Amino acid sequence: MNKLISTIPEKATIEEAHERITPYIHRTPVLTCESINKIAGTSIFFKCENFQKVGAFKFRGASNAVFLLSEEVLKRGVATHSSGNHAQALALAAMLKGVPAFIVMPENAPGVKIEAVKGYGAEVIFCKSNLAAREKTLEKVVNDTGSTFIHPYDDYRIIAGQATAAKELIEDTAQLDIIVTPVGGGGLLSGTALAAKYFSSGTKVYAGEPMGADDAYRSLRKGKIIPSINPDTIADGLLTSLSEKTFEIIQREVQEIITVDDDEIIAAMKLLWERMKIVVEPSGAVPFAAVLKSRKLFSAKSVGIILSGGNVNLTKLPF
Amino acid sequence: MNKLISTIPEKATIEEAHERITPYIHRTPVLTCESINKIAGTSIFFKCENFQKVGAFKFRGASNAVFLLSEEVLKRGVATHSSGNHAQALALAAMLKGVPAFIVMPENAPGVKIEAVKGYGAEVIFCKSNLAAREKTLEKVVNDTGSTFIHPYDDYRIIAGQATAAKELIEDTAQLDIIVTPVGGGGLLSGTALAAKYFSSGTKVYAGEPMGADDAYRSLRKGKIIPSINPDTIADGLLTSLSEKTFEIIQREVQEIITVDDDEIIAAMKLLWERMKIVVEPSGAVPFAAVLKSRKLFSAKSVGIILSGGNVNLTKLPF
Repeated sequence: MNKLISTIPEKATIEEAHERITPYIHRTPVLTCESINKIAGTSIFFKCENFQKVGAFKFRGASNAVFLLSEEVLKRGVATHSSGNHAQALALAAMLKGVPAFIVMPENAPGVKIEAVKGYGAEVIFCKSNLAAREKTLEKVVNDTGSTFIHPYDDYRIIAGQATAAKELIEDTAQLDIIVTPVGGGGLLSGTALAAKYFSSGTKVYAGEPMGADDAYRSLRKGKIIPSINPDTIADGLLTSLSEKTFEIIQREVQEIITVDDDEIIAAMKLLWERMKIVVEPSGAVPFAAVLKSRKLFSAKSVGIILSGGNVNLTKLPF
Repeated sequence: MNKLISTIPEKATIEEAHERITPYIHRTPVLTCESINKIAGTSIFFKCENFQKVGAFKFRGASNAVFLLSEEVLKRGVATHSSGNHAQALALAAMLKGVPAFIVMPENAPGVKIEAVKGYGAEVIFCKSNLAAREKTLEKVVNDTGSTFIHPYDDYRIIAGQATAAKELIEDTAQLDIIVTPVGGGGLLSGTALAAKYFSSGTKVYAGEPMGADDAYRSLRKGKIIPSINPDTIADGLLTSLSEKTFEIIQREVQEIITVDDDEIIAAMKLLWERMKIVVEPSGAVPFAAVLKSRKLFSAKSVGIILSGGNVNLTKLPF
């Protein structure tokens, strides 16, 4: 039988997720940098999920979700529509289990992303580049193959998996005053908020969000989900809108969302590359941009930042 | 009194150097990457000196040399001519001791490098961009200030300091078959060869060298120092020629030098950035380029590579 998680993940659910995926994930390092601390006027602990398998935290949630499927269900494979890190993460999780992964991608997706997904043994099915076409194509794939759709974030198994990044960060540092993550669909943010609640009481959770895709910021203000319409930002991993499951947790557990513009994101990203010698994608630099922007809020604190990913086209850098 | 090291560093000399500098340096991580191993057909352990203070291994040698000076000598400061990582390393080492550093730089040195050195509190003295002008200016500075010239590599204190990178790599990995470093003036290579000899008998040492600055390769062939004349390579940290002290050690202890062209260096560098999400400068990618080129030699071995530095102008990348 499939083990569905039908309520907000509890402490034990996240602990079990962590045990389940630990043999397969990297326990990514927590790095610090004196010159960055000087510039930011605070103490930052960077959880380097850019070093995670497939180059992003997404592998945590995807592997937790896949590994929870029953043998019976699993053997028919898994499916999703994504052109980003979730697609690669799901493909790798399926490959580790020796089952097929069906990834629906828009026909105009960048060649490097298509190749990356195929590199993990997934079958890519192309569709027109709009949400309706994606959903319809995915539905057909699922019907034809009997595979299981794994949503990138509106799924408690995914949220529990993403929570393990903050759980490790908490385990590997002294008491943190604040943890900051990026927010797109909210899987990482909601998981982080749960991890802080269960494993580090007193640690507050904030998020950084691009101004050009500020649906989470607006949703929290309005008290209901306001979807992103034509989001436009360099942080291409954060274009999606919150879902019911992620919004409910975020509304309860997250302090505030800080919006940053693309120039601020690019400047923060460049600073991370220059000073820390690590490759971080624009989406991954968003929380650091938020910390640089809201100096007062973070001043002289102990701040954890989840560097969510490092997948970036090196021949098209914004600086 | 100054503690001069007047003979090739012995085992205890390197151990003492390591103890001396350990409170001040980063013990940089040793990283591995499955996809890189697959591509290279071998097991590589990357010692990440790109994460070292000032962004390069150079801080090890510079701090060892500075910390060995007597109070009396130290208070008059230290001096060198360099526009590269040694200048920053010496400046930081001097700053930690609260003494002046005088850095002679060519007047056409890039602004970012000048600012970096000044950022560590050093005084920059400009000269014309040729070796004679550099040496003459340095001599005047040393005479005027009473400061001590610290050569970037023709100095056993420097060599003993650089040896500590390989010592740590050896301590942090299982038995290595081979260690590969870049070679410019030979400080890192000669130190690494000594560390392997003393701390990991049976481990062979190779170097990668740019074809456009292959003086070490030619010197080993001829059995005498052949200086670089008009070196031309993207690996701008490896333009210098071997010195007497480094050549003697390299001739005795190093297996072979593998030359690589700039295209091979750039490809290796890009692969490290893409797959490992780390920033490595061209010079730092040279040993990995050598491993990719000489596949047979390294096939199915356990190979340590010292990623020597990560200082690169992000707005002028070669890819």
